[in-house]
Amino acid sequence: MTLVEPGTDVLDTQSARAPEIDIASTRPGTPGGVFMRQFWMALDNSANLAAGRAKPIRIMSENYTLYRGRSGKAQVVAQRCPHRGAMMHLGWVEDDDIRCVYHGWKFDCSGQCIEQPAEGTGFSRKVRLPVFPTREHQGLIFAYFGEGKPAPFPPYPEPAGEGIIDPWPAYQVPCNYLQCFENTMDEVHVAFVHAPGGSHARLAKDLPVITAEEKDWGMLRFGTRANGKVRHTLHYAPNIVRVIVPPLYGMDGVGGWPVITFSLTPVDDDNCLWIVTSKAPVTGKDADIFLEKRAEMERKRAAAPPVMQVVEDLWSGKLHYADVRHPDLAVVQDIAVQAGQGRVEDRTREYLGRSDAGIILWRRILARELRLIAEGKPHKRWTTPPADVVPIIGI
Amino acid sequence: MTLVEPGTDVLDTQSARAPEIDIASTRPGTPGGVFMRQFWMALDNSANLAAGRAKPIRIMSENYTLYRGRSGKAQVVAQRCPHRGAMMHLGWVEDDDIRCVYHGWKFDCSGQCIEQPAEGTGFSRKVRLPVFPTREHQGLIFAYFGEGKPAPFPPYPEPAGEGIIDPWPAYQVPCNYLQCFENTMDEVHVAFVHAPGGSHARLAKDLPVITAEEKDWGMLRFGTRANGKVRHTLHYAPNIVRVIVPPLYGMDGVGGWPVITFSLTPVDDDNCLWIVTSKAPVTGKDADIFLEKRAEMERKRAAAPPVMQVVEDLWSGKLHYADVRHPDLAVVQDIAVQAGQGRVEDRTREYLGRSDAGIILWRRILARELRLIAEGKPHKRWTTPPADVVPIIGI
Amino acid sequence: MTLVEPGTDVLDTQSARAPEIDIASTRPGTPGGVFMRQFWMALDNSANLAAGRAKPIRIMSENYTLYRGRSGKAQVVAQRCPHRGAMMHLGWVEDDDIRCVYHGWKFDCSGQCIEQPAEGTGFSRKVRLPVFPTREHQGLIFAYFGEGKPAPFPPYPEPAGEGIIDPWPAYQVPCNYLQCFENTMDEVHVAFVHAPGGSHARLAKDLPVITAEEKDWGMLRFGTRANGKVRHTLHYAPNIVRVIVPPLYGMDGVGGWPVITFSLTPVDDDNCLWIVTSKAPVTGKDADIFLEKRAEMERKRAAAPPVMQVVEDLWSGKLHYADVRHPDLAVVQDIAVQAGQGRVEDRTREYLGRSDAGIILWRRILARELRLIAEGKPHKRWTTPPADVVPIIGI
Repeated sequence: MTLVEPGTDVLDTQSARAPEIDIASTRPGTPGGVFMRQFWMALDNSANLAAGRAKPIRIMSENYTLYRGRSGKAQVVAQRCPHRGAMMHLGWVEDDDIRCVYHGWKFDCSGQCIEQPAEGTGFSRKVRLPVFPTREHQGLIFAYFGEGKPAPFPPYPEPAGEGIIDPWPAYQVPCNYLQCFENTMDEVHVAFVHAPGGSHARLAKDLPVITAEEKDWGMLRFGTRANGKVRHTLHYAPNIVRVIVPPLYGMDGVGGWPVITFSLTPVDDDNCLWIVTSKAPVTGKDADIFLEKRAEMERKRAAAPPVMQVVEDLWSGKLHYADVRHPDLAVVQDIAVQAGQGRVEDRTREYLGRSDAGIILWRRILARELRLIAEGKPHKRWTTPPADVVPIIGI
Repeated sequence: MTLVEPGTDVLDTQSARAPEIDIASTRPGTPGGVFMRQFWMALDNSANLAAGRAKPIRIMSENYTLYRGRSGKAQVVAQRCPHRGAMMHLGWVEDDDIRCVYHGWKFDCSGQCIEQPAEGTGFSRKVRLPVFPTREHQGLIFAYFGEGKPAPFPPYPEPAGEGIIDPWPAYQVPCNYLQCFENTMDEVHVAFVHAPGGSHARLAKDLPVITAEEKDWGMLRFGTRANGKVRHTLHYAPNIVRVIVPPLYGMDGVGGWPVITFSLTPVDDDNCLWIVTSKAPVTGKDADIFLEKRAEMERKRAAAPPVMQVVEDLWSGKLHYADVRHPDLAVVQDIAVQAGQGRVEDRTREYLGRSDAGIILWRRILARELRLIAEGKPHKRWTTPPADVVPIIGI
Repeated sequence: MTLVEPGTDVLDTQSARAPEIDIASTRPGTPGGVFMRQFWMALDNSANLAAGRAKPIRIMSENYTLYRGRSGKAQVVAQRCPHRGAMMHLGWVEDDDIRCVYHGWKFDCSGQCIEQPAEGTGFSRKVRLPVFPTREHQGLIFAYFGEGKPAPFPPYPEPAGEGIIDPWPAYQVPCNYLQCFENTMDEVHVAFVHAPGGSHARLAKDLPVITAEEKDWGMLRFGTRANGKVRHTLHYAPNIVRVIVPPLYGMDGVGGWPVITFSLTPVDDDNCLWIVTSKAPVTGKDADIFLEKRAEMERKRAAAPPVMQVVEDLWSGKLHYADVRHPDLAVVQDIAVQAGQGRVEDRTREYLGRSDAGIILWRRILARELRLIAEGKPHKRWTTPPADVVPIIGI
């Protein structure tokens, strides 16, 4: 049973209890899987996929191939060749087509088989490779895995104002996406999780009171401090947060506080990708200084131990949490704590409080939507977030 | 079917057959789990836990946090914070309290929540972190996981006589604790398992006849040699052996034959900890020589390949058993053979003989007790082993 | 549903569809397990087992011990000692007997227990270690795991003509044996899978039309080229191919095109061994050149990254298929593609074509035989392949 502190008065505490419906799964065919497949999913940084290359990806418990044609077009197709199940990413990209490594069957980017070197004529027209709508925006590759017409693209507006769009390295995190998304609604954690290293010290001085409102496009959340200042954070349905955050530990404060747009893309029920685009509010000479520091940060990253190795050492007790320093310190800290809750957190054993108001509201929304989907009833039509609702630093 | 050689006449051979009850499991709720939770369990060497530090532990298929307060007090608490399931060992030890890394909830060493920085007043008193009685003895940390009042502490007397108490490094061994405990009842094995390297040559000259007696505190076992000498080994219920053994291979004979007190603590049904305290019978100048050799042994250990790597190479056939040398050679040999029986040995396929008399008796006792527990009937009340029953080298 | 291209006219396309019977499993007790146990299985290269040594093996989901007596005789016995389940390969080979590491029980190579050092007389005669017929041929060790009298030995004739018999290193491949055996029936793959590096360029110039015939000893398969030349490949039941192939990439063309005899031995349903003996058609001075190059190849192999590491990097997308070079390039390519089909390929989702005629015929034969076995009906009595049916290069 989830006990909720009475102070969380504006919320329907009943619905925050462990819902009978599985809100964490995104497997195909589950209510959560249908829900999530209404939205474009961020897959990777555009810069990670050169023209002419293909790679394997796994999204919401299904495997795919992602390739970029010679023209520059990115395309998601099935993992395997329909002939005998070879992995398509081992093959060759030719123009915007892809050819299987096993017997040279070639498919255009609509999925139509257009060559079968050892077969007779007429067979290829019967064979198709499943393809999925694929688009790029703000340095990221997105795909749509739902049925029917895809949702409008781009799924969210570019952050307002001048600055440098900077996609961070993508991390694969060994836990369910939802507990990471919940963490973004949990503003209090920064005062503790990120205390070692001090990156979030300015957010830790006095703790905010959390409130949240459902919107057509997701959830708008407020952190109100004793001094009356209010931090606004945008939670775009179903798995994206837009928020103003401190610079990464390894940036030594250079570049100021960026707006980040942070997708928590399910790999499967036990793993997710963290795909982050930051927009650093720097122009002119400051931009040069930022880019120089950014390059130094990359060198630090390359020299540092892998994030997951540090996390494993924290979990085993080999490293001591308070002692760890790393260029991506906040990432190490967040993964250690969030994935440390378990692959899928056991939500039946929690004691939620008033500081969990954002989490409670989002679970209520999610449970409501998933129940409607499970019952085959009409459910909410989410809209693209408007450009004029922006995050506010509020400190 | 377990065939028992007729020579094992004093024992009820029927009960030595694979009992219908699972004697190997210690999972919570199983008869074996209830049985084992009547006793204090050795967890770790005291020296492995500095004041102010916390670490994760897993005992009998359940996860916990072990920490040492600033006062020096060791305490076992639940693995996870009751709020949102963060791992407690990632947090901070403050005085003798522990604070969660995620939102700073603080618990005293009785488990009472005493601070919730972002919550209103009155909530914390409703929240408790499960705690478990924790004590130290002879350089080891013990905890009690049973219901009700803990068994008397310490669970066994200090070995008699002068000497140096020396906890060995703890090993995690990839098999069920019971087959390791059975191995301690199996005196004949030393003549073969430890033949390479020759550490047990004095015990291998003529093979003893094994007999055993149930005691209020466990089992007393005898190895009678042709020359009439009798070796006495003490098996303290449920998983501890006290015995006089040869020095480790890397000690090159220095320190003489120590008394060891050896706990086989279940991690889960497939793994156990070997926690050993030796008492070397050395005083005065001999003690200095011993301590110098002991320090050299540590250097040898640090330079040697990890024990489990050697074991894996033996299992795969990459290394040849007769060729292996290692400072902890007997440990390598014992783990290779015992964990090589399988994670949980298949006791239905054995051919037991008269040399297995100790194992046969202990299985009979264990099966009897577990059956009584399974049937909800009164079962044996075990006593603390008396100080005047001591192991005898008997060669 | 498996769609079969109409061009595959001579075959019963129905039976090529995913059969209702599991044709991939070789677990004991399954129809496939019974079928496979009618044949001698290649286990290892003879040169990998020195006299006096023992090693663990796993064949068709069962574990065994393989040892070579002091006389040179190789013998397969059970994995575990019947006494208390210790791994037999940890023990000692004495003459042609094997002694258990745990308590010194000794078994002769017929499996009879002949010594039990700590037991009374009369017990040992009741104890046997299971043994399995074991023979050697052409540099390989074979064993027979079926019931009753073993099939005739050797299971196939030596390749005709002069030359050097050269067993390649054995590889463990992480997929079911059947998809590897099917790959040997799939002559078209070489033009694509082995295109990078160019080892099979002479076979890729024009693609053959594939046909196949069932024989008393397996399947004879033809690849007919536009110029009328016909390549003959021999598929010995149940898992051996004899074929003329290009030299390995690292041989730089030296030694010419060898005849290889290639066993795909199931380790379990998810893994198999590739055990290959090549016969290079070289004599006299050419043989010396060949042996020198062969030694250089071994040095290249030792210096190259392990085959499975390269394969894993191909699967993850870290390496690009077209870029990889390796002394065993064709092996890397074949494992990446075949094991990349999945541990057990999903045969229900294929679109087979006329180039799959060999695969289609073999599946039909296999399904027919397994169904007869499942129904307890008389099934085919396979014969030893005759020496006068030989592979033909046909290009």
